[in-house]
Amino acid sequence: MSRKFAVLGHGVVGSGVVELFYKNKESIEKRAGTEMDIKYILDLRDFPDSPYQDKFTKDFNDILNDDEVTSVAECMGGVEPAYTFVKACLEKGKSVSTSNKELVAEKGDILLETAKEHGCNFFFEASVGGAIPIIRPLHRCLAANDIYKTAGILNGTTNFILTKMYNDSMKFSDALALAQKLGYAEKDPTADVEGLDACRKICIISSLVFGKHVYPKSVYTKGISEIELCDVSAADVLGGAIKLIACVQRNENGKILPFVMPMMIPYDNIISSVNDVFNALLVYGDGVDKVMMYGRGAGKLPTASAVLGDVIESVKSDSTVLSQSWEPSSDDSFVDSIDNFKAKWYFRVPLGSEVSEEGAYTNDDGISYITGAELTFAAARRKAEESKALAFYPVLE
Amino acid sequence: MSRKFAVLGHGVVGSGVVELFYKNKESIEKRAGTEMDIKYILDLRDFPDSPYQDKFTKDFNDILNDDEVTSVAECMGGVEPAYTFVKACLEKGKSVSTSNKELVAEKGDILLETAKEHGCNFFFEASVGGAIPIIRPLHRCLAANDIYKTAGILNGTTNFILTKMYNDSMKFSDALALAQKLGYAEKDPTADVEGLDACRKICIISSLVFGKHVYPKSVYTKGISEIELCDVSAADVLGGAIKLIACVQRNENGKILPFVMPMMIPYDNIISSVNDVFNALLVYGDGVDKVMMYGRGAGKLPTASAVLGDVIESVKSDSTVLSQSWEPSSDDSFVDSIDNFKAKWYFRVPLGSEVSEEGAYTNDDGISYITGAELTFAAARRKAEESKALAFYPVLE
Repeated sequence: MSRKFAVLGHGVVGSGVVELFYKNKESIEKRAGTEMDIKYILDLRDFPDSPYQDKFTKDFNDILNDDEVTSVAECMGGVEPAYTFVKACLEKGKSVSTSNKELVAEKGDILLETAKEHGCNFFFEASVGGAIPIIRPLHRCLAANDIYKTAGILNGTTNFILTKMYNDSMKFSDALALAQKLGYAEKDPTADVEGLDACRKICIISSLVFGKHVYPKSVYTKGISEIELCDVSAADVLGGAIKLIACVQRNENGKILPFVMPMMIPYDNIISSVNDVFNALLVYGDGVDKVMMYGRGAGKLPTASAVLGDVIESVKSDSTVLSQSWEPSSDDSFVDSIDNFKAKWYFRVPLGSEVSEEGAYTNDDGISYITGAELTFAAARRKAEESKALAFYPVLE
Repeated sequence: MSRKFAVLGHGVVGSGVVELFYKNKESIEKRAGTEMDIKYILDLRDFPDSPYQDKFTKDFNDILNDDEVTSVAECMGGVEPAYTFVKACLEKGKSVSTSNKELVAEKGDILLETAKEHGCNFFFEASVGGAIPIIRPLHRCLAANDIYKTAGILNGTTNFILTKMYNDSMKFSDALALAQKLGYAEKDPTADVEGLDACRKICIISSLVFGKHVYPKSVYTKGISEIELCDVSAADVLGGAIKLIACVQRNENGKILPFVMPMMIPYDNIISSVNDVFNALLVYGDGVDKVMMYGRGAGKLPTASAVLGDVIESVKSDSTVLSQSWEPSSDDSFVDSIDNFKAKWYFRVPLGSEVSEEGAYTNDDGISYITGAELTFAAARRKAEESKALAFYPVLE
């Protein structure tokens, strides 16, 4: 029996899903253990040049009411109408695989619960880290671990900009303009540059790892627009690269602390070598010590690859995957304050300041140094005010 | 109902499985969706200090004939008696999860077939790359891809030695002695140093990715014992690090080419940053472009983490995982000759040699350069003979 699935949305990712599926149909069917085909492609637009004319529909009900469709790939993006469509599919027992990080970050708990109630699956490997296997390794391969921290580069646009600043001494504004020219950044780059995109992804990872839904509004988020070239080069002299890090960790008080902010990454941490548009996630567990997954975090075929991996899994799984779920959260009292975040810090203070730390580096832009001891975010902020610091960033341990 | 499993072998990995299981029992059971417990630990030795006295047995038949045991973790190592025990378990419908790379490299096809015949699973995530999620991401997350190449650092001992040569200008023999002192290398280091360990692992990956069993004897294997310090530093000047790479690729003639040998890795390839005892695998596919998985390739708890991840999966899976298997091979005519391997090459030739390539680097140890064009292995060997080359290594693309 051939298993039929539908693709919601025929934009970049959705058209990639169709393209990759037909390119590798034979090997995909072998891995799925069954014949497979796409029965519908939902889009309000017309695609007169597509070779799959007979599959297009503008009416979601064609898909919803067709019992032959047991699996759906959602590639529309945005919360609505994606949420309404996905929920309706799950309520009919159709598994859904999505690349939509807004949807998972805002409605993941409800959709996972709906899937469980109706004996199907809500998969979202593509919503974090594009092509990179993250979600499945986290909850399956590492299932025997107590995972207490993850830290990652989860936004390709900002990593491209920071790489250009680092490698080519390009100013932030010039690197952003280049990213826009190359199609890596949107005309309005706010969601990428100010960390909102990375924030949604760390929400998903936090929810999965720690078992309770974390909403974007509970996450301290700072982007890269204030990073100056002189700090990128001073950090290099002090032994590290500045990267936009999305992190979540369990603090000593038992609360979890998710955040997004620029950090200095010492060169002996491999994530300092993750450059250009590539993403990576470091996972810390009591069994594995640390593992890292690396790859393209966005793009047509990389994201399609992750969506299709989930579709194949959904075709093979006849029951709900229990481990890939989390509970709703009625408040965010389990989320710690960023003020309690502890780290060593990179500081740049004005020339002439009194600096007692060892290994300080002085040039025309000021005096840069790393604090010898760990400080909380609150203490670092006070120290920055008192020392009239020109910049300060935490160091990733 | 509590699901019972047995652990074969109470050495480093086996005792790690027991330790990690009881440490994280609660969260493991949550992820498995059922209560779980260890019913037997098989070992011929006595462990009077173990808190799990009541679980030890010296008789494999206790495990084989106990229908309550539905899953077995094999951590004995070596082909026999592991093979006999594992096959007997699978024939009784008990799923087996193993960390035993010799077993999988030599007998994987038979054991996968046996599992399929008896509706259970033979899992081996821990046999390649220790803690690192490799096997499951390869055949699940990347299931939509045509994977045409993988290249990895799959042996921690040799990577530690090469890192010491690189970072601390330590000679090979001194770095080996340090590795032995730290417990990273055996007294007889041949299996690691000459590439046999990495060879077994690339056999497993080759079999899984390309669907036919590849035996170690079909794999060109060269270790690191001939690498000289002056080549490590000359390669650095020319823009790369020398690493022991285990690779398999599909050649233009449709044959596959697995091999293990030292290669020069340009610094813009992230695998050049994988240092110390860490392992990593780069996977190239038509959807994902490239992804990398990184982590500890050996060690008690890291390997135990991978074994337990498989045990949890086996408890959750009620049927054979079809995609994780490959066919037996009656000959190795599908394996290409290393002579056909194409790459650019690092060469070091004697002082006074005539070198026409650009960017050559000359010091007391000779003249080092990278060939401008790709050469086959056969052509590179001829060139090395003609130019009386002191060393030559392929460059990873």
